[in-house]
Amino acid sequence: MEILKNELLGLVKENLTKYLDSHIEFILKIGRYILESGGKNIRPLLVLSFAKLLEEEDLDDLVPLAISMEYLHTASLLHDDVVDKADTRRGKPSANTVFGNDTVVLTGDYMYANSLYLFSKYGNIEMIKVVSDAVKKMAEGQLLELKKIADFDLTEEEYFKIIDGKTAVLFAACAYVGANYSKADENLLNQAYQYGINIGRAFQIVDDILDYISTEEKLGKPVCNDLREGKITYPLITVRDLLSEEEKQYFRKLVKDINPSDKDIEKAKNIVLEKEGHKKAFQVAKDYVRKAIENLDFFPNNIYNQELRKLAEYIVEREV
Amino acid sequence: MEILKNELLGLVKENLTKYLDSHIEFILKIGRYILESGGKNIRPLLVLSFAKLLEEEDLDDLVPLAISMEYLHTASLLHDDVVDKADTRRGKPSANTVFGNDTVVLTGDYMYANSLYLFSKYGNIEMIKVVSDAVKKMAEGQLLELKKIADFDLTEEEYFKIIDGKTAVLFAACAYVGANYSKADENLLNQAYQYGINIGRAFQIVDDILDYISTEEKLGKPVCNDLREGKITYPLITVRDLLSEEEKQYFRKLVKDINPSDKDIEKAKNIVLEKEGHKKAFQVAKDYVRKAIENLDFFPNNIYNQELRKLAEYIVEREV
Repeated sequence: MEILKNELLGLVKENLTKYLDSHIEFILKIGRYILESGGKNIRPLLVLSFAKLLEEEDLDDLVPLAISMEYLHTASLLHDDVVDKADTRRGKPSANTVFGNDTVVLTGDYMYANSLYLFSKYGNIEMIKVVSDAVKKMAEGQLLELKKIADFDLTEEEYFKIIDGKTAVLFAACAYVGANYSKADENLLNQAYQYGINIGRAFQIVDDILDYISTEEKLGKPVCNDLREGKITYPLITVRDLLSEEEKQYFRKLVKDINPSDKDIEKAKNIVLEKEGHKKAFQVAKDYVRKAIENLDFFPNNIYNQELRKLAEYIVEREV
Repeated sequence: MEILKNELLGLVKENLTKYLDSHIEFILKIGRYILESGGKNIRPLLVLSFAKLLEEEDLDDLVPLAISMEYLHTASLLHDDVVDKADTRRGKPSANTVFGNDTVVLTGDYMYANSLYLFSKYGNIEMIKVVSDAVKKMAEGQLLELKKIADFDLTEEEYFKIIDGKTAVLFAACAYVGANYSKADENLLNQAYQYGINIGRAFQIVDDILDYISTEEKLGKPVCNDLREGKITYPLITVRDLLSEEEKQYFRKLVKDINPSDKDIEKAKNIVLEKEGHKKAFQVAKDYVRKAIENLDFFPNNIYNQELRKLAEYIVEREV
């Protein structure tokens, strides 16, 4: 993905804090703290790539919109840290630890509002509909995840609502904004949105697989951290029906345990891996990547199309 | 304000929870908990009144916008409760106490996003600009208040940024939305917005005066609660220059005290009242009411004009 990285990422990086636009020193400080802590800026890259994919030349008014999608993401990270009571993020102390919960909640609110303000200034009302709908779904997804902790019977439908809210709807809104800016027709707008959903789901499923099969060293947190927190994810869901009654009882008890032992977690992990939950989940992630690539077939076959294809493929190639 | 109450308030009440629009049961539950806890719904009333003031007949698409201004207010109350670590609101246990901080933060996020979504569906982009700008200023005002706690030298300009964020900008956005819906020209849009700013400032100044001169029974919290929390408000600001060096030192020390004694607070209160800080502040509040009434002079002189005039006058009449 050299072109995305060389050409478009530079445009994002040099404008990243330009639109924070506050007279409150603290907002600028917290904004910079999190924006400059080494995120991959994949959301603004998606916005710009979809405009270039549709051969848009003039990106002047799109850059602030692309940046504002990163601000939305930042707002959600800030509130996440408060909700999860996180201590670190990207290897640095989390914003709530450094600045306090109250400041972080309010700065997140500012970031959300500022994003929508930028859309009212540089975008249009259809974009605002899709973006505000994404923010609604992000909050709903997180609330659902919170309420479903320790619930072994989480449905597949609920799981997808959760991961859509975590990742997919914001990716989808990004692709949509880029395509809308380039005056795409209804079908292309829909394909762009679906591309975002599809890579977002693939990305999150792979994340959930890595939580089972990677190492503490690579993850930066203990293996099976989701399970430790009582969260049921896709590798387990794919094998749930294959479990014996005894195994089901074991999992029901484990996900309710506030502080499960490493041994109990190891046993659960081995059950999932024996039944090939990770492989089944991986097949589904690959299906979503394939669908994402099909979405791209509707667009001009230029270098950006190739880049977005590589981005989709990269998701299932990393570390699995 | 019989007409506002009889005619328009009914319209608000019967639609108050209609647009919460979530499949997550918890959002509906928390939404209803706070929406039905007896707020005065002054924000949606302002929206509808300004449309009626401009002789708008068809309120069909304005009702969801009016309700969505109440959702914005609700979102800010939810986040306030987390920020202030409040135990009660309107005599009931606060939402954070009942549902937990994490749920309340996310439900607030949902409420903000849903409001802007409703604006993208029923409103227009100018409204979204003004409304999202108001939300930015609300967050900035609260952050400024937080950062300026225990700062005796809070400037008058900073004080107004704080109270604008607390009350005035959302009132202003409400009046603006009603006027914009009725296709008001630039001047009327501006007068509507300023009316909201003026009554909002008067309202907040009177609140700050009552904190000095009312009783614990009427306030539902100890007198001089602001001062106890290290907050410098208008009655003190108006007399600050008249204080002796010794008195200034006394206040500097007091506002930094985490847990001041009743006796120390009483002494501070008496200094402000002796120098007539409450009366000076009240004159300024009355000035804002006068300005608000002047804003109304630009609009048709109908019953809604009379009602909005009474609303402005009521602000400085209550309990002072």
